[in-house]
Amino acid sequence: MAQTSNIHPVSGVYLGTTQAKIKKSGVEDFVVISFVEGSRTAATFTTNAFCAAPVTLAKQNLKNTPTRALVINSGNANAGTGQQGMLDAQQTCHWVAEELGISEQAVLPFSTGVIGQNLPMPKIESAVPAAIANQTIDGWEMAAKGIMTTDTHPKTASRQFDIEGHTVTLTGFSKGSGMIHPNMATMLGFAATDAKISQACLDKALLDSVSLSFNRITVDGDTSTNDACTLTATQQADMPEITDPDSSAYQVFAKVLNEVMTELAQMIVRDGEGATKFVAIKVESGDSVEECLKVAHAVALSPLVKTALFASDPNWGRILAAVGRAGVVGLDINALQIYLGDVLLVDNGGRADSYTEEAGQAVMNETDIEIRIILNRGQVSETVWTTDFSYDYVKINAEYRT
Amino acid sequence: MAQTSNIHPVSGVYLGTTQAKIKKSGVEDFVVISFVEGSRTAATFTTNAFCAAPVTLAKQNLKNTPTRALVINSGNANAGTGQQGMLDAQQTCHWVAEELGISEQAVLPFSTGVIGQNLPMPKIESAVPAAIANQTIDGWEMAAKGIMTTDTHPKTASRQFDIEGHTVTLTGFSKGSGMIHPNMATMLGFAATDAKISQACLDKALLDSVSLSFNRITVDGDTSTNDACTLTATQQADMPEITDPDSSAYQVFAKVLNEVMTELAQMIVRDGEGATKFVAIKVESGDSVEECLKVAHAVALSPLVKTALFASDPNWGRILAAVGRAGVVGLDINALQIYLGDVLLVDNGGRADSYTEEAGQAVMNETDIEIRIILNRGQVSETVWTTDFSYDYVKINAEYRT
Repeated sequence: MAQTSNIHPVSGVYLGTTQAKIKKSGVEDFVVISFVEGSRTAATFTTNAFCAAPVTLAKQNLKNTPTRALVINSGNANAGTGQQGMLDAQQTCHWVAEELGISEQAVLPFSTGVIGQNLPMPKIESAVPAAIANQTIDGWEMAAKGIMTTDTHPKTASRQFDIEGHTVTLTGFSKGSGMIHPNMATMLGFAATDAKISQACLDKALLDSVSLSFNRITVDGDTSTNDACTLTATQQADMPEITDPDSSAYQVFAKVLNEVMTELAQMIVRDGEGATKFVAIKVESGDSVEECLKVAHAVALSPLVKTALFASDPNWGRILAAVGRAGVVGLDINALQIYLGDVLLVDNGGRADSYTEEAGQAVMNETDIEIRIILNRGQVSETVWTTDFSYDYVKINAEYRT
Repeated sequence: MAQTSNIHPVSGVYLGTTQAKIKKSGVEDFVVISFVEGSRTAATFTTNAFCAAPVTLAKQNLKNTPTRALVINSGNANAGTGQQGMLDAQQTCHWVAEELGISEQAVLPFSTGVIGQNLPMPKIESAVPAAIANQTIDGWEMAAKGIMTTDTHPKTASRQFDIEGHTVTLTGFSKGSGMIHPNMATMLGFAATDAKISQACLDKALLDSVSLSFNRITVDGDTSTNDACTLTATQQADMPEITDPDSSAYQVFAKVLNEVMTELAQMIVRDGEGATKFVAIKVESGDSVEECLKVAHAVALSPLVKTALFASDPNWGRILAAVGRAGVVGLDINALQIYLGDVLLVDNGGRADSYTEEAGQAVMNETDIEIRIILNRGQVSETVWTTDFSYDYVKINAEYRT
């Protein structure tokens, strides 16, 4: 499923990966990415109040100085590590900055792995020059491997496209094990483009695309302490700078960015160990984005709906009950319809007259399932992607530390 | 665990139970309770927008006429049944009213069981006189059996107590299979007392006690379509009427009511099939009830915390991450403490220095577990009760209809 065959390198981006031996398995676990001078970076981070030391530091550094490098380790989240965790994140940035000859604040740190253990600093000290020595413009696939925790494959997405006659490249990679080892389930996404684009347009494009991609996948409702997503524009493409979010150049860029981010986000859902289904929940004809998402999340996070999905059981009562408790003010249950794929499941507050178990069962037997909830009260639609709850979800999460 | 030995009958309350054969298993599934004239009833219902026909009708009838009877069937929830469901609920009340010689609107209907099937009306027509013929003041235990769905035992609680020298009786029963067959997981509670108490005081006492009992248990966050709880005061006790919520008589009554309701609610959590743990989550020193409950529910409903509880794994990182994502504005993670039983787990934003895995493991090995989260930002405390997520949760819910 990994799209390894068509990764387009991005001019001005150098990726180096090595084995810091933070992970016992001795696979790649340490990545340094550097960007050419003049690059602009946008980033967004977890809203969990218990955020990891590298998140706190990355937010500070992003504010102070144009970013020139990212340093990412897997195997250890550097979360719940108190003051020592912050010192370790700073020290890591210091080593990277020294090796690259840039300011310490131009480095953003990221960590993913187990919570509550200090970073093994001697290992990181040796890994920094090793990773930087490996840096190459073709290092995307290896970097995607280096940030994996329980992911079963690296996740990359890439596009080359045309903005008003100029070729632009956009490439990214992500990690996340979905619902599986969620102490380690940090969701990370890193993307870069050679587009010439203003900081304001870049910030807007990232936030808009993340809200429609990484923020639209939900597995078990648990937000990680380390979630982060960055987008860097190296400004190397031969094109006029995009400065206006209403321009057609911006629209083209934003559209491709949404595609890449959605692809990276959906790969995380599909790669959840224990996940046997990929489920799109579309809420249509709502009054507001907020109420559409309320309904979508109530259905997506309902353990009853999720276990029914695992059992391939077209249990419409559970879906309807989840919609009913979503907390939408003035919701008229009798006015809505629910479709399972193309099959009308619920109408007039109960099972649709035309519904047959055979038709519902046929849709449920698929791996990719779409649940459409048509509220019939407005013009807004929203989609959320999720998975089922399987035996393996309980098994893997119950046995994680044993 | 059922407290069958000490059920005190309530003067003016007559309970009759029979086999309507709605359930295939041929056990008791139909109950009619009637109250002496002059009784007062308070009730509270599910907030699910997709509420069942009997809930809609019971709300209407309660508003219009003093309640003289409850009619309850198990095996069929009469939910998602549209207009026919409403007609069937009305017809059921009509038969009960005719048999008892009271007004149709003096009857409140309740149903629990599978969603989306019409009630078998001929069976109900014959069950009404049979149940009423069986009515006795000692019918509590049998009625508690008659409303069971997947419950493994009837749930009753009873007290005889003194209000300013007068003996008062309060008895109730409940049903709910907790997290198990949640299509059938309607939570029902019915209580009665012989106390002389005004309608306003009765309403307040019921709402206050439900908010601290039935509304403090959470298994999987799914609110049923049929949840309901009633409290009837027959006014038969030899005592002055309670009319002032500030009086000591009211305080005594409310205290005992809270005990009975909490006992009935906790029995529902403990009886969840698949549940291997009974977990109290106490949030202390919060700024408001709302923020304490936000934190308690974030922890109680986290699948990661719940699977760790099933595994008896003192996984403090998962608890802390759940607290962090609860959405409490301005929460300082470094200022809070988390205890597992008497063991300090988290302090200064990470694992407490004094913590040992052995100490945490010893608490986790128990069946009854208390998690205390001390926010250190205010004076408010709240407690929520919940269970773990086990293999059996997935198994039973996945295989429910097969």
